[in-house]
Amino acid sequence: MSNDCTFLDDLSVEVSYGDSDRESHAGDWGAETFDLAVTPDAVVWPTSTVEVSAVLASANEHGVPVTPYAAGTSLEGNAVPAHRGISMNLTRMDAILDVRPDDFQIDVEPGVMGSAIDSALETHDLFFPPMPASADLSTIGGMIANDASGMKTVKYGEVGDWVLKLEAVLADGSVITAGSTASKTSSGYNLCDLLVGSEGTLAVITRATLEVAGRPERIHGGRAIFPTLAGATEAVFDTVQSGIDVATIELIDRESAEMANAYLDTGLPNAPMVFVAFHDPVEREIETCRSIFEAHEAKQCEISSDESRMDELWTARKELAFAVQVYDPDRRPLHPGDITVPISKYPEIIRYAKALSAEHDLLVPCFGHAGDGNVHYSVLVDPDDPTMRERGELLYRRVVEKAIDLGGTATGEHGIGMGKREYMIHEHGESSIEAMRQIKRALDPRDTLNPGKIFPETADGERVQADSTDSPATQ
Amino acid sequence: MSNDCTFLDDLSVEVSYGDSDRESHAGDWGAETFDLAVTPDAVVWPTSTVEVSAVLASANEHGVPVTPYAAGTSLEGNAVPAHRGISMNLTRMDAILDVRPDDFQIDVEPGVMGSAIDSALETHDLFFPPMPASADLSTIGGMIANDASGMKTVKYGEVGDWVLKLEAVLADGSVITAGSTASKTSSGYNLCDLLVGSEGTLAVITRATLEVAGRPERIHGGRAIFPTLAGATEAVFDTVQSGIDVATIELIDRESAEMANAYLDTGLPNAPMVFVAFHDPVEREIETCRSIFEAHEAKQCEISSDESRMDELWTARKELAFAVQVYDPDRRPLHPGDITVPISKYPEIIRYAKALSAEHDLLVPCFGHAGDGNVHYSVLVDPDDPTMRERGELLYRRVVEKAIDLGGTATGEHGIGMGKREYMIHEHGESSIEAMRQIKRALDPRDTLNPGKIFPETADGERVQADSTDSPATQ
Repeated sequence: MSNDCTFLDDLSVEVSYGDSDRESHAGDWGAETFDLAVTPDAVVWPTSTVEVSAVLASANEHGVPVTPYAAGTSLEGNAVPAHRGISMNLTRMDAILDVRPDDFQIDVEPGVMGSAIDSALETHDLFFPPMPASADLSTIGGMIANDASGMKTVKYGEVGDWVLKLEAVLADGSVITAGSTASKTSSGYNLCDLLVGSEGTLAVITRATLEVAGRPERIHGGRAIFPTLAGATEAVFDTVQSGIDVATIELIDRESAEMANAYLDTGLPNAPMVFVAFHDPVEREIETCRSIFEAHEAKQCEISSDESRMDELWTARKELAFAVQVYDPDRRPLHPGDITVPISKYPEIIRYAKALSAEHDLLVPCFGHAGDGNVHYSVLVDPDDPTMRERGELLYRRVVEKAIDLGGTATGEHGIGMGKREYMIHEHGESSIEAMRQIKRALDPRDTLNPGKIFPETADGERVQADSTDSPATQ
Repeated sequence: MSNDCTFLDDLSVEVSYGDSDRESHAGDWGAETFDLAVTPDAVVWPTSTVEVSAVLASANEHGVPVTPYAAGTSLEGNAVPAHRGISMNLTRMDAILDVRPDDFQIDVEPGVMGSAIDSALETHDLFFPPMPASADLSTIGGMIANDASGMKTVKYGEVGDWVLKLEAVLADGSVITAGSTASKTSSGYNLCDLLVGSEGTLAVITRATLEVAGRPERIHGGRAIFPTLAGATEAVFDTVQSGIDVATIELIDRESAEMANAYLDTGLPNAPMVFVAFHDPVEREIETCRSIFEAHEAKQCEISSDESRMDELWTARKELAFAVQVYDPDRRPLHPGDITVPISKYPEIIRYAKALSAEHDLLVPCFGHAGDGNVHYSVLVDPDDPTMRERGELLYRRVVEKAIDLGGTATGEHGIGMGKREYMIHEHGESSIEAMRQIKRALDPRDTLNPGKIFPETADGERVQADSTDSPATQ
């Protein structure tokens, strides 16, 4: 049912009710795959915290949902306005507000692209270590809201580990700050880390202070090709276990290699590959890595300090996401999300996914930030074949459930959104979900902010956290 | 007013109503200084999560406060049972449950001492990097509850950065888990980091999974003596700013040096000193550090790789806390807590404290984890001189307020407890405090867990978060 959003006309914020604007805010990358897009009733483009606050206060009063939106690159339907209402596009709040090299800090607005942050820092010889590979496609607001991570997370941690302070607007329009520009604080509840990864369900982030680091002076990187997937996954585990200071360690399986090789015409063998990078390494570390790889019979193990050669060596990994998309015109990747397990379980979860792939006769390319125990996997299905699609869905689910049973998580970096809600109780237990719900109800009693996300779906699919004693006026 | 705790007799948990047991749970290190000790009505020693849950469920039903207690080493009255009720002593839950070297993880109960964790890890060549210097005096539960940090935080971060997963009991007795044993997760709200630093006001931690790291193979450490405090603080700032990978960088001012020298009979000059340590350093880093120190006219700059020599060089810093206590039998240190500022403001906050010391004619030794922008300072006053004490309180307050105004925090590592409540609104603003209160009310509507902490005091001093529609039965 559509919501009456005409109260927006009384606010000094740009608003559109046009079909084209609304439709372009209906989905994200994940929603496109899932066919989960939902068209909002209106789109607003605030340009300041004051405007964000005014929209939220009014929407909350009118019982109209508000879903934050920026680049639309999330994978689990996180930015889909599942209960319609207002899509709040934050891309006009895209200023770099302040760079403080002396404190290794930068202040940004939520709509700024990752690549713009990198450019602003590069002039000071600084960088934002957890930056995802999608830096030129996604915004810092989205990265924070999903607690994203990237290729360098094995060394530097997640986005959330580098967020010092946030300004954010709660559902009722009140503006809070969370965290501190001090490098550490024990002052009060850690609202900052509570908002990180809350996917716009608790607040709209309007400003962030990020910690940054000195750019590495020397980067060495390369890749090795392994005869077996077991050898490749064990090489990853042994490398992490050795404690050497690897900045990146990524794996792609044979199927992924085949897709990348076909897409890029590399002439490389279709075999599992592991990619590594070191920041300001000592020679001993690179040698340790090399000998671990060789113990697992790696071939063509090359680690270079030459930038263009590194780019060449890395191409298969860098272009993989696109290679998977275009590999077979009759197949579509189902669910492009991720799972993460403790590193000792990494070989096992990969083995498990491959066994299911064989059992169900479905192509399941696996790749990802291996050093984190992180696996991205897709199940390629014919979208017009409901039986195959069903088999694919089952396979996909079994891998997520196995990851949780191995002490892992349903998502290491893309969030729950709509796509992973069904795993929440399995992963966290009823009591923990209830505690999360209590927090949601406390900060957003009318379920104004991004309803229909994170929490397990209710039987009737209605907004789940709405306070029954104070239900929204329009539904 | 005392609470009737006889309902505890129906539970299978060890309980005492004896004066000596109750009195030994009345305070912590901070409360002793503040004269803020409050005797609980009963003490319980649970030995399992089930017992913790049973006590909380009953206490919550009876409206009786429960305050977690372990080593009693916190500095801000964090463990004082401010509204009496039950002191829950967790020191019998002191098991090391599991060490998983393959995953760099250890599972522990809350009452285990830091030093016991270190011993358990040492056999695997691992260590817990953020361990506070008080490892042999304090428990991991307390460290987590205060989001403690230590001498190696400048390199490795705070305790909270190394907590992967918690089991905890909410006020109503329900048991939750928070976080994941995966190295990263984007699954649901970050309850784990919300509980870290919440000082036992949201839940009682009953089990923790900590991330650990490979023990450094080589440690180099030493100290330098500076002619001026300005030179010493600027040397700290320049060292951090240079980006060299220092694992520890501590400062003590002239007054602290004088106290340590007197206590230890070192024969060293009474002058500001800076202490450093490097883990597995490259020689170039040590040389950079040395040349930065020399640019600020450091004397006796010695950095050694010999363990016993390092211990000697570090003695003044290590024994300082005791040296301050015994320096002048007629003076007592007022408020032994800490503040933290962005590193670029570190020289300024030290200058400010020293200017106030001169202005008020009071001895104010300053020291601490300088590389974090962290300052521990005491004001030495005659406890029997109310005017001097009042001047001391004023001075103390002005430094905290200045730290906040410089973008810092009222506490970097010891928490708010009772001692720092008055600064909460100044630091976080009314809206953020209200958001914290909403979370407190949501998870603990009857204000059962550690009431009278963190939140600003109300005019009548009563329990502040109690739900007015569901007020505790006994008060």
